[in-house]
Amino acid sequence: MSKTMLTIDGLQYSNWSREIFEQMREGGLDAVHATLVYHETTRETLSRLGEWNRRFEAWPDLIMPVHVPQDIAVAQASGRVGIILGAQNCSPIEDDIDMVEVMRDLGLMIMQLTYNNQSLLACGCYEAEDSGITRFGRQVIREMNRVGMVIDMSHSAERSTLEAIEISERPVIISHANPESFHPAKRNKSDKVLKAIAESDGLLGFSAYPFHLRNGSDCTLTEYCEMIARTADLMGIEHLGIGTDLCQNQPVSILEWMRNGRWSKDMDYGEGSASNADWPRPLSWLRDSRDFPNLIAGLRKVGMSEDDVAGIMGKNWVALLERAATRQETAPA
Amino acid sequence: MSKTMLTIDGLQYSNWSREIFEQMREGGLDAVHATLVYHETTRETLSRLGEWNRRFEAWPDLIMPVHVPQDIAVAQASGRVGIILGAQNCSPIEDDIDMVEVMRDLGLMIMQLTYNNQSLLACGCYEAEDSGITRFGRQVIREMNRVGMVIDMSHSAERSTLEAIEISERPVIISHANPESFHPAKRNKSDKVLKAIAESDGLLGFSAYPFHLRNGSDCTLTEYCEMIARTADLMGIEHLGIGTDLCQNQPVSILEWMRNGRWSKDMDYGEGSASNADWPRPLSWLRDSRDFPNLIAGLRKVGMSEDDVAGIMGKNWVALLERAATRQETAPA
Repeated sequence: MSKTMLTIDGLQYSNWSREIFEQMREGGLDAVHATLVYHETTRETLSRLGEWNRRFEAWPDLIMPVHVPQDIAVAQASGRVGIILGAQNCSPIEDDIDMVEVMRDLGLMIMQLTYNNQSLLACGCYEAEDSGITRFGRQVIREMNRVGMVIDMSHSAERSTLEAIEISERPVIISHANPESFHPAKRNKSDKVLKAIAESDGLLGFSAYPFHLRNGSDCTLTEYCEMIARTADLMGIEHLGIGTDLCQNQPVSILEWMRNGRWSKDMDYGEGSASNADWPRPLSWLRDSRDFPNLIAGLRKVGMSEDDVAGIMGKNWVALLERAATRQETAPA
Repeated sequence: MSKTMLTIDGLQYSNWSREIFEQMREGGLDAVHATLVYHETTRETLSRLGEWNRRFEAWPDLIMPVHVPQDIAVAQASGRVGIILGAQNCSPIEDDIDMVEVMRDLGLMIMQLTYNNQSLLACGCYEAEDSGITRFGRQVIREMNRVGMVIDMSHSAERSTLEAIEISERPVIISHANPESFHPAKRNKSDKVLKAIAESDGLLGFSAYPFHLRNGSDCTLTEYCEMIARTADLMGIEHLGIGTDLCQNQPVSILEWMRNGRWSKDMDYGEGSASNADWPRPLSWLRDSRDFPNLIAGLRKVGMSEDDVAGIMGKNWVALLERAATRQETAPA
């Protein structure tokens, strides 16, 4: 298939390799929001960044870092995949407000305030109760706004999400989740949250992780695309993108790290269970990044205009990063 | 004054020096709960432990570490001050349940679950709202129970404190605070909390930090001792001790570290204010550890029996540590 449409995947966490990046190119991807860390501390995050530096050094023909939104156009023009680094938790900043700018300077463009559990900033979607954004969290949101680090509430609880949107002066995103009206799950979002994300001029990236889908691994491409079309009525097409949550070639130990970090002595199965502890079976129409053209075809098939498809497939992500991932100009004293 | 009564101070954080330890001996102190860290990470906590090792090496005639409650009797018999190490926040374990046992093995006997702000475990008394003990917090309480690390809720919010008491199978303490019926302050405790501490067979250490006292630095010894006598009616005398919160010879930078850690870009004044940012003026009757005999005299003067005074001045702290700071025996498999 010839490459015509700017394409961005708003969340992947694969076992990165040359093969994975070649599949991205085959599938027409121009940029991917790649998860850098789940629970890693500041020091450990620096090592994960070091690993990315090695990849950029090893495969400059295939990938390049995205430090500013304009880098995506550079990646596209040169036939490479731009890597947008993001953290699924606030662990990279530990307890230190100054680490927000340090991490942004190193290329961390997107950060979730929580991952399932309570963090120092906000509450995750697996806690019994949510008391909203903390004192530290309020300061971190302001600092993320200032340095242009995008606030991602994918794994956060509802009240914390609504408060983050209220406190933030810039758009807030959910990089990978679905409407709970499509499929009820702790990780999926209420209409109230989705409307607030749209009102913040933010973005929802639709997840293709089977635990977030109606009928799980048997969810059809048509069901998925119809969900997107319905959500456009709620949020406006310009606030929609893709965030597949593809985690390719990862061992179960990685799933256990995501779910348990270092906080649990008991096994926590997250969205799975003791009898269903493994990765879910992949979707037949999205086995890996090479299947991205299926999404384009699927969106066309449910009746979307070319402009709308182009927005969802990538342009909306670029526009979001231009709104939220640039440094705020400050007047000289 | 000749030394007759076992004496323990349940909280000090001074700028440790030979002079400070000599003052403790002059005041008749046999053991002190010494704050090891406020916001230090795991690695930083190891350095603070290293500094204590140097002190124990330098002044073996004056101080010794307390690893088990029985060490206090050893300190008393040898005329030294036993050092009970405690953390005012859960920062030493970071996000890692395994660090509870590691820290206990290194001699950390007492740990607060929060310091004013939301932590990964529970909510602090300066947050707007408190959603109780987190998923990680529940596991940490269980682990602290197992290894014999005492749960201290001095700087925690009310709901988190009540939930910690409910979840914990061992006594819970408030090492340094006062009844809010004596002086309303965010750091002081409601009768409900104090009763629950007593029901857990825990302990309240009465603070002599002016911000926790009626009339602040002008609070009289009689007022202080009458407060203790009244609280005995509520909690039972066996659940009371002293926890002065003496912070001697510390620069204002230390107060700023306590209040701001690394989380705030704005100056947080804690219990003070912009116009009252410094350490409070000391009490005339407790200028430093040498004034501990004043407390004994004061308690006698408000009509307490010798047994009651001996309990409050030290025996109750020893009994608490015997109940809460010993390793739980586990049956072999």
